[in-house]
Amino acid sequence: MSVPPPRLLDALFTTTAMAGVLSDRARLQAMLDFEAALARAEGVCGVIPARAAAVIATTCHVERLDVAALGAALGAAGNPALPLIAGLTAAVAAQDPEAAGWVHWGATSQDVIDTGAVLQLRTALDLIGNDLDRLCETLRAQIRAHRHTVMCGRTLLQHAVPITLGLKLAGTLDALHRARTRLRETRERALVVQFGGAAGTLAALGGQGAAVIRHLAAELGLATAALPWHAQRDRVAETGTTLALLVGSLAKLARDVALLMQSEVAEAGETLAGTSSTMPHKRNPIACPLVIAAATRLPGLAATLLAALPQEHERGLGGWHAEWETLPEICRLTAGALAQMHTVVEGLEIDAARMRATLVAAPGLAAAESLAFALAAHLGRPAAHELVARLAREAQSTGRTLEQLAAAIPEVAGRLSRAELAAACDPAQQLGAAQEFIDQVLDAT
Amino acid sequence: MSVPPPRLLDALFTTTAMAGVLSDRARLQAMLDFEAALARAEGVCGVIPARAAAVIATTCHVERLDVAALGAALGAAGNPALPLIAGLTAAVAAQDPEAAGWVHWGATSQDVIDTGAVLQLRTALDLIGNDLDRLCETLRAQIRAHRHTVMCGRTLLQHAVPITLGLKLAGTLDALHRARTRLRETRERALVVQFGGAAGTLAALGGQGAAVIRHLAAELGLATAALPWHAQRDRVAETGTTLALLVGSLAKLARDVALLMQSEVAEAGETLAGTSSTMPHKRNPIACPLVIAAATRLPGLAATLLAALPQEHERGLGGWHAEWETLPEICRLTAGALAQMHTVVEGLEIDAARMRATLVAAPGLAAAESLAFALAAHLGRPAAHELVARLAREAQSTGRTLEQLAAAIPEVAGRLSRAELAAACDPAQQLGAAQEFIDQVLDAT
Amino acid sequence: MSVPPPRLLDALFTTTAMAGVLSDRARLQAMLDFEAALARAEGVCGVIPARAAAVIATTCHVERLDVAALGAALGAAGNPALPLIAGLTAAVAAQDPEAAGWVHWGATSQDVIDTGAVLQLRTALDLIGNDLDRLCETLRAQIRAHRHTVMCGRTLLQHAVPITLGLKLAGTLDALHRARTRLRETRERALVVQFGGAAGTLAALGGQGAAVIRHLAAELGLATAALPWHAQRDRVAETGTTLALLVGSLAKLARDVALLMQSEVAEAGETLAGTSSTMPHKRNPIACPLVIAAATRLPGLAATLLAALPQEHERGLGGWHAEWETLPEICRLTAGALAQMHTVVEGLEIDAARMRATLVAAPGLAAAESLAFALAAHLGRPAAHELVARLAREAQSTGRTLEQLAAAIPEVAGRLSRAELAAACDPAQQLGAAQEFIDQVLDAT
Amino acid sequence: MSVPPPRLLDALFTTTAMAGVLSDRARLQAMLDFEAALARAEGVCGVIPARAAAVIATTCHVERLDVAALGAALGAAGNPALPLIAGLTAAVAAQDPEAAGWVHWGATSQDVIDTGAVLQLRTALDLIGNDLDRLCETLRAQIRAHRHTVMCGRTLLQHAVPITLGLKLAGTLDALHRARTRLRETRERALVVQFGGAAGTLAALGGQGAAVIRHLAAELGLATAALPWHAQRDRVAETGTTLALLVGSLAKLARDVALLMQSEVAEAGETLAGTSSTMPHKRNPIACPLVIAAATRLPGLAATLLAALPQEHERGLGGWHAEWETLPEICRLTAGALAQMHTVVEGLEIDAARMRATLVAAPGLAAAESLAFALAAHLGRPAAHELVARLAREAQSTGRTLEQLAAAIPEVAGRLSRAELAAACDPAQQLGAAQEFIDQVLDAT
Repeated sequence: MSVPPPRLLDALFTTTAMAGVLSDRARLQAMLDFEAALARAEGVCGVIPARAAAVIATTCHVERLDVAALGAALGAAGNPALPLIAGLTAAVAAQDPEAAGWVHWGATSQDVIDTGAVLQLRTALDLIGNDLDRLCETLRAQIRAHRHTVMCGRTLLQHAVPITLGLKLAGTLDALHRARTRLRETRERALVVQFGGAAGTLAALGGQGAAVIRHLAAELGLATAALPWHAQRDRVAETGTTLALLVGSLAKLARDVALLMQSEVAEAGETLAGTSSTMPHKRNPIACPLVIAAATRLPGLAATLLAALPQEHERGLGGWHAEWETLPEICRLTAGALAQMHTVVEGLEIDAARMRATLVAAPGLAAAESLAFALAAHLGRPAAHELVARLAREAQSTGRTLEQLAAAIPEVAGRLSRAELAAACDPAQQLGAAQEFIDQVLDAT
Repeated sequence: MSVPPPRLLDALFTTTAMAGVLSDRARLQAMLDFEAALARAEGVCGVIPARAAAVIATTCHVERLDVAALGAALGAAGNPALPLIAGLTAAVAAQDPEAAGWVHWGATSQDVIDTGAVLQLRTALDLIGNDLDRLCETLRAQIRAHRHTVMCGRTLLQHAVPITLGLKLAGTLDALHRARTRLRETRERALVVQFGGAAGTLAALGGQGAAVIRHLAAELGLATAALPWHAQRDRVAETGTTLALLVGSLAKLARDVALLMQSEVAEAGETLAGTSSTMPHKRNPIACPLVIAAATRLPGLAATLLAALPQEHERGLGGWHAEWETLPEICRLTAGALAQMHTVVEGLEIDAARMRATLVAAPGLAAAESLAFALAAHLGRPAAHELVARLAREAQSTGRTLEQLAAAIPEVAGRLSRAELAAACDPAQQLGAAQEFIDQVLDAT
Repeated sequence: MSVPPPRLLDALFTTTAMAGVLSDRARLQAMLDFEAALARAEGVCGVIPARAAAVIATTCHVERLDVAALGAALGAAGNPALPLIAGLTAAVAAQDPEAAGWVHWGATSQDVIDTGAVLQLRTALDLIGNDLDRLCETLRAQIRAHRHTVMCGRTLLQHAVPITLGLKLAGTLDALHRARTRLRETRERALVVQFGGAAGTLAALGGQGAAVIRHLAAELGLATAALPWHAQRDRVAETGTTLALLVGSLAKLARDVALLMQSEVAEAGETLAGTSSTMPHKRNPIACPLVIAAATRLPGLAATLLAALPQEHERGLGGWHAEWETLPEICRLTAGALAQMHTVVEGLEIDAARMRATLVAAPGLAAAESLAFALAAHLGRPAAHELVARLAREAQSTGRTLEQLAAAIPEVAGRLSRAELAAACDPAQQLGAAQEFIDQVLDAT
Repeated sequence: MSVPPPRLLDALFTTTAMAGVLSDRARLQAMLDFEAALARAEGVCGVIPARAAAVIATTCHVERLDVAALGAALGAAGNPALPLIAGLTAAVAAQDPEAAGWVHWGATSQDVIDTGAVLQLRTALDLIGNDLDRLCETLRAQIRAHRHTVMCGRTLLQHAVPITLGLKLAGTLDALHRARTRLRETRERALVVQFGGAAGTLAALGGQGAAVIRHLAAELGLATAALPWHAQRDRVAETGTTLALLVGSLAKLARDVALLMQSEVAEAGETLAGTSSTMPHKRNPIACPLVIAAATRLPGLAATLLAALPQEHERGLGGWHAEWETLPEICRLTAGALAQMHTVVEGLEIDAARMRATLVAAPGLAAAESLAFALAAHLGRPAAHELVARLAREAQSTGRTLEQLAAAIPEVAGRLSRAELAAACDPAQQLGAAQEFIDQVLDAT
């Protein structure tokens, strides 16, 4: 079987590494890895002859299978395990007819499909974890570089009080720290071997079931579960929700960058901004829309896994089958979103001068809150609020700054010194606990 | 570009025909079909030179493109239109450098991506419509064959009063009639050309925009929209919900068949029932779980398209991109579910004797409702209800039938004649309006 | 039962009228309306005594029920029909013990719950239809008023070529026309009576089933279904998706308005903009976020109804129950989104001068596309594109306009006359087919 | 404000305790608890006068507010914080006009809404945690009681090899152990105070921000976050997915019980099974459908929270608003599902004799796997599989048991002793590692 070409849009929605992990070829090889490990474990435990175990184990390579025949048999089989096992049995029989009788011994289709999927998932989560770590590192560097870069905070898309770019990015890093912790917790629960036989008792192995599981898990480097989980699928669904949470946090920053990249704002943007097929002057965001697209798709995909949870008795009637392409798709999109977001953060073009200018140009309005608070200590909050609102309207209509207007009226002049007024109107002095907050995020690990 | 192999699980989740329609190759060709039609339309309208139009149109074949180069350029471009147009322009330039300047004239990336997707969708909906018609025909035949086949109605998975298998299937046919109507309505709205240029005004075509649209639509056999719909995506999302509704109705029957196929029920089942890798005696449902799997996945996929609706200004920031793989996936799964369901319905193994036996064996309990109603006319509903409940409990504990027990007590014997009592306890006489209902469904078209 | 107070957040998420339609009281009354109509229909058909029918029908008022007792009995019953029927039977018995025996005659719990829900739905869809018509009218007026109000088209949140505000709003009106058509189609399918008795055969009515259905439907002003639809729930799910599509289209405009309302853009905004509890100068969008919130919630709610479709046999095991609060919630949010959007559109504050200024201030860049197209006829598209891109960069760095720069170089001066160059750079002359598009939308009805 | 009556269907979908926690009254009181704690914290830190702090804190009771006025003002305000603060300010002013100026000092609407929601969530998660612990205890008791109760394993709804009821229940307990761990992890992340002021810097508190947060958190018994999380909503969405995972695992068991309760199976069922309004003999599942309904609704509700994650800048434009009713609804349904499931498990009616009879009556077919495995050691797997499949078909058509048929043919008789054959056909000897698996679950905590 030749390596199949990637899907056309893989270049947009995933990474080359992840496309490889999730390829059909990798899916088949992971299932074969289970069969090889099973044979070895059963050989060690004396459940099957050592010689048969050795022949089976060495035959478990996708190159040894007739993949075309496998594909042709798939439709009638209803799952990929049956034709895979048939193909493997034939390949083993070609070398050692007796060994062929011991292929897949004591296992059921779901054992090989599920454990194969877990093996793929482990590599997928490794890639995701590494890319997440790398993104966190890049974010930390940007936060340190821009912890004092003042910019306008924006609530409901309206100018609010000043923040710093570092603080904004620290919000994302803090969320990604939680994503990393969740990923670790989920890994621990999800990367377990599946092996239960026909209905989860390993009846066919007599008293050897538990021993074979332990050896099998050790062979594969997976943990053991307390019991087979053929119809208990919360591990699978949790993997989906953990990744959906991660991508949602990535898309929050992607949306912010795209908003900052607007023609009218132009405070920050993607480096490798795209060109338009019709408009020569345009510099389109490329990566941010793709991250947002992933975050638009993941809730529905994660909901699919949640909806599939109530599976029937000892094997689900469709719920299980609904996972087969959904979980890989979630991994695929997560890898893509991480990679795109890394490109965005690493290459973030930042116009700090324009950020500062926004704060000042909106004629001093960023100062409104701090001035209102400064006056509230003297006038009470309602009166201060009302006074500043009046001055703000005046500032907007006259183009003068709040500081200029405030200095000119006795309610203010009589209560705040020039220095106090200036301080109230200087963005860099209105950052409250921003630096402490940033440190709390940077100090966490 | 060689035809890429199908995805491994296509054999389970879609049809060969649909896999072809949705392949990467078909996606690129559909986009080229747009470019060819655009060139011809603009040639006819005198917007571009006739000679250039001819050269472009004849070059628009995927075999003429360097697909590997296209794939390599995709990541940096952010959408498949830019490298496709670059590739097409190069291929045209190789024949006629002047013509190359008129490729994609006045169009934007979204025009070619969207119209290409609409062209693929048209073929996909053709396939789905045909398969739906075929399924309806097969259902009609089964309904006619089994309109009098009595079986137990089941509510909340408990035995209720008798129905017929024909009535059960008629419920699905009735739902599929609605699905067919929705499909027709959706087609009419969705199969429209997209052509608006940079921001939906066709500014680059001067006064010729509307004329070019009309010719373009005629070339492609699509309808025109009242205006470009770059950021109005309800047509796309509606296609998703219409297909999700259809698949949900299919899965309702799939679930029923799988329930009837249970070892304990065994009243009906799939013909090509699968074998187990561990249990030689098992006859597993193959198609029903796959239909249920599709119905488990479609709600999340349709929700993705709904969630993507609020797109920004004249082109969406990620919402649009979220459609690119989601709508094809919906078509893919719908085709698979229809095909699987046709297999189920056409080959449905029906054990009419066992169906009737179930009605009788549950010792006459199917008669409980009709007896209660027959008595209610004499005793009032509450008293009749209570009396029959008492008899039913007695029937269950003694193994005698309700008819036998009822005949023996004066409250009944004094009020119902033997014949009335027998009629009240004969399933075939307790079918109410079932035949009229069946006819109302069969008479609809 | 006293009218229960609205839910606290009803003021944000729905209308008073819709809250009334969906109240618990209205739910109970709608169920009683079914019982009254059923009694009358069965009286007319001679299935129950005319006198009993009359007593039952006049007792079917929620004020006659002991709602507290009903609530207390609900948990053990598992559905609201059983305690309602018990309460109704008691109230009828208090007047005429014999009539009490004919309450709910031949019907099952699902008949009354479903038809009650359909009656509520009819009024809900009436409200929604009226509010949608009203919104369309208001939009038409704004489109007419602003069909020539030029503004910047924006793709991927970047400045693109000019459009008009009327064209932008026409896109939404066009989508709402489709929403109106869908609503009409869905109404026709969804507003049907449910009446099938224990398992959908109306066995208890002997040969009178179909006749009673017709009278019942006539009494209630509903259509009849071809057959009972206890476990065929596509009508319910379709109602959800139709409304989700509508709200998605509303949120598209809400998002646009909120983006136009940004401090940096300030081209349009809500009239009744809110104030901040901390920042006196802020004018927050109030309605737009609520519409977007509704559009964020509806995909998941609609997906719930889709996921509930595969219901078991003749009555669903949980899928049906999942609809009881979900469909009302969808109606509730749709009404709220429509009302909020009407407020937004009707009171839209538009700064046409600023819209025009944006087009010009971005130093002539809006002209880039039209200049590139004008030159392409002379230089070929690639060369023209490249030339304009160079000029655009120069414009951005120098602050001079594209027109000024273009006029100064021989590649342009030698090919375009002054007038041609000026035309290529005048937004009002770069609107292509915008007016035709607007007319096509306004002419549709 | 009088305590509002519960929603009509609360009796089905939640518990009385949870309805109280999530009531509108509780929502307002939780917000007032924030305001009281804020005043006290700011009083202690010297940010506001101690006397003002005291007056404010003692006024923060919902009984002191004019709730009707609050409701009336809500629509124009766009969020519940503004009218609440206005009402509180008025109530404080009535006692101490000066103190009124210090109400809500330095906080923004989102601080009070979010922290109020966290306070409600804490109580909600307490209830859920307790109910989950209680359910686990009840499950443990049933597992211990039925660890040896043999029953038929069922895969794809077909009879498979024997399991025990204890093993089936242990699968759910194992899943609930993971649910409990997730709940603990989520609690730790989610129960944090929100306090950031206008844009997350606490600018209005000068250098006192971090100190006030610490005191505020201590007052409320919440943890502090590394920084304000106004637009980082992964904690909220994670709460939704954690609960959706839990309810999905509950519904898995609910579905199994409903399947076992089928008329044809009747091996186990709900104690308090419901009666039908039309069919006196029916014993409907009541609780199981409600649990399945919850599991049908939660994926869509959780997906809503996931879809809301990418919120704009320092306060979301609708995403935040989408949480306000969605998270409470998730808590509401989770509590209901837990309570219903406890009823089911505690009162589970188990017919162990019938379970065993099922295994035997299906004429020895449960033995097929073990016989095939026993023979495989002699004949090789393919030949053994084929032989047993032939015998199984013969058993089904003749009504004889597999053991009888096998004993009669030389391929078996020559290879297995009578005792080996009997052992291979005795369900109680085919349980493999079931008891070890059960112990591994019971030993976990």
